[in-house]
Amino acid sequence: MSRESDLIEVFLRPFPRGERVRVGPGSDCAAVSVAAGMQLVATTDAVVEGVHFDLRRFSPEDVGHKALAVNLSDLAAAGARPRWFLCALGVRKSGHAMQIARRISRGMAALARESRCALIGGNVTAAAEWSVTITALGEARRPLARDGARPGDALVLVGLLGDAAAGLRPYPSRPAARAQRRPVPLVREGLVAAAFASAAIDVSDGFLQDLQHLCEESGVGAVVECSSLPLGNAARRLPDGMELALGGGEDYALLLTVPRRKLPALRRKLRLAEVGRIVRGRGVQLTELGQPRPLPRRMGFDHLKK
Amino acid sequence: MSRESDLIEVFLRPFPRGERVRVGPGSDCAAVSVAAGMQLVATTDAVVEGVHFDLRRFSPEDVGHKALAVNLSDLAAAGARPRWFLCALGVRKSGHAMQIARRISRGMAALARESRCALIGGNVTAAAEWSVTITALGEARRPLARDGARPGDALVLVGLLGDAAAGLRPYPSRPAARAQRRPVPLVREGLVAAAFASAAIDVSDGFLQDLQHLCEESGVGAVVECSSLPLGNAARRLPDGMELALGGGEDYALLLTVPRRKLPALRRKLRLAEVGRIVRGRGVQLTELGQPRPLPRRMGFDHLKK
Repeated sequence: MSRESDLIEVFLRPFPRGERVRVGPGSDCAAVSVAAGMQLVATTDAVVEGVHFDLRRFSPEDVGHKALAVNLSDLAAAGARPRWFLCALGVRKSGHAMQIARRISRGMAALARESRCALIGGNVTAAAEWSVTITALGEARRPLARDGARPGDALVLVGLLGDAAAGLRPYPSRPAARAQRRPVPLVREGLVAAAFASAAIDVSDGFLQDLQHLCEESGVGAVVECSSLPLGNAARRLPDGMELALGGGEDYALLLTVPRRKLPALRRKLRLAEVGRIVRGRGVQLTELGQPRPLPRRMGFDHLKK
Repeated sequence: MSRESDLIEVFLRPFPRGERVRVGPGSDCAAVSVAAGMQLVATTDAVVEGVHFDLRRFSPEDVGHKALAVNLSDLAAAGARPRWFLCALGVRKSGHAMQIARRISRGMAALARESRCALIGGNVTAAAEWSVTITALGEARRPLARDGARPGDALVLVGLLGDAAAGLRPYPSRPAARAQRRPVPLVREGLVAAAFASAAIDVSDGFLQDLQHLCEESGVGAVVECSSLPLGNAARRLPDGMELALGGGEDYALLLTVPRRKLPALRRKLRLAEVGRIVRGRGVQLTELGQPRPLPRRMGFDHLKK
C-alpha cells in the first residue's frame, strides 16, 4: 500500500456514513440525492498553517474541528441544514504526517457527527504547509443571502463577539482560547432564523467588515449602538475588548437583519441581541449611548494585506 | 477597497453566470437547484505550486485551466454533466499577486465557458505557495463508479497515455508540453460512456495504479495487453514511452469496463482502444503480444512518497 492510500484510510476511519449518499468517499466522485423542493447550498473555506493556525497553539484536533466549523457557520448564515462535505488536505511531509492527519480527522469527525454532516469525498496532496480546504453542502427551501436587508429592519446578533480575537493574544484566558480554536457554528440558530430574517452573514472577518459587506450587497446603510454589542466573557475583561468585538473576526456569530414586525417572534425562539438598525443610504455609523463614535481604523481581517 | 476584495473582483470578472444559480459568487454560500431525478455528483481536487506546477514552466492561464480540467475529468469518469464549481485560492503574497490571479481566472474561465460549468463560490487565503482547490458539481441520472466491473468485461481506454508525463521531461515536444499543461477533460465521452460502462475511473495517478484502484473496488482482476495501449504522439517517440504510459499519470484518459455485448454499440459512438479484460481474482497482469510482461516498479504517482 502506498503512503497516500494509508493516510486516506486513516483519515476516513472516524467518519460515519451519511444519509442519501449513493457513492461515498474513496471514489473519483461522490453522488448524493438532494431532496425535492430543496435548493443545494454550497460553500468553501480553507484553514492554512501559518495563516489561520500554527501547530504549537492548535492541536490537530482543533484544526480539524475549526476547518469544518467555519464552513458550517457559512451554511448556518444561509439558513441551510448541513448534509455533506468534501475535504481537500494539504499535507506537509514529515515523520508525523500520518499521526497529524489521524488527529485532524478525529476533531473533524466529532463535529461532523454532532452536525449530522457526512464526509463524502476529498483529496490529498503534498504541500509546503498543512491546510484543510472544505466544501460543505447543505439544503434549504429558501436560503438566506446578504442582499435582502431593507431600511427599517432591526440589526440582530446571535452569539458573542471578540473572544476569538482575544484568543490570539499571548496567554489567552480559557474561554478566549476556546473561542479561537473551537468555534461553535450556530447551525440550529441559522435554521430558526431562516424563517424570520431578511438577510444574514456570519461574523468571520470582523463584525464591521461583515456588516459592511451585507450593507453593500443590500444597497443600504446601518447604525450600530456599541453598548448593545454582545461581548464575550474574555473580550469584556480586556481594555480594548470593544475594538476586538468590532474588528477582530473569527467569532462565527450570526448577523441578521429582521423586519421589525417579525422581531418579537424571533426573540421567543432565539437568544439574540438587537444592536442597531438598517437605514437608507450607504455605510456603517457607530453610536455609543446615542452619541456618534468614530469608526476604528481596523475594520476587520484582510487575507492579502501586507 | 481591500486587497482581498479587489482580487476577488478581478478573479470573478471573466466568468459567465450559470443556469439555475439562485445565489452566486460573492456571498457566504451559493445556492443552486438540482434537476428532478438527478443525483448530485461532487468531486474536489487541488493543484499546488511546487508539487503540480511551477510558474516558470506553467503560465497562470495553464494553472487555471488545469485546476478545473482535473476536476471535470473526475466528473467525466462518473458520467456526470458538469454544472457548477467552487474555487478556493491560496495566494502567495507578492507584487504580482493580482496579475497572476487575473491570469489564472482567464485560463479557468475559458474552460468553464466551454464546459458550461459555472463558478458559484470560492475562497481566498494567503499561503506559502499558490494553490487552486476546486470542488466541481455535476448531475447524473446514474453516476458511474469504480466498483461495478465484472469478470468478462472488456477493458477500454478513451484518450491517450504517456504524453503528460513526457511533458515533465526537459525540453518537451509541443504535444507533450500541451498534454501536461492543458489536459482536455473528456466530458462528452464520459456522458456517452455512462450508458454502456459498468465502471470507470480517470487516469490521473497513472494507468496501472488507477486500474488497480478500480480492480480493488470491484473485487476483480485485470489482464492488460500492452501492445494495445494507445500511446500519445510524444510518448510513442520515446524509448521509455511504454513506461510513461503505464505509470506516468496525469493523462486524464478514461478507463472503462464495458460488458462485452455492449462494446460494439459503444465503439460506434466513441473512438476507443480495447486494451484488455476483467478477470476473476485479484491484481493486474500485463502481457505483450500475448506473453507475460513483468509489472514495472513504479505503478503511478504517490503524493506523499518521499
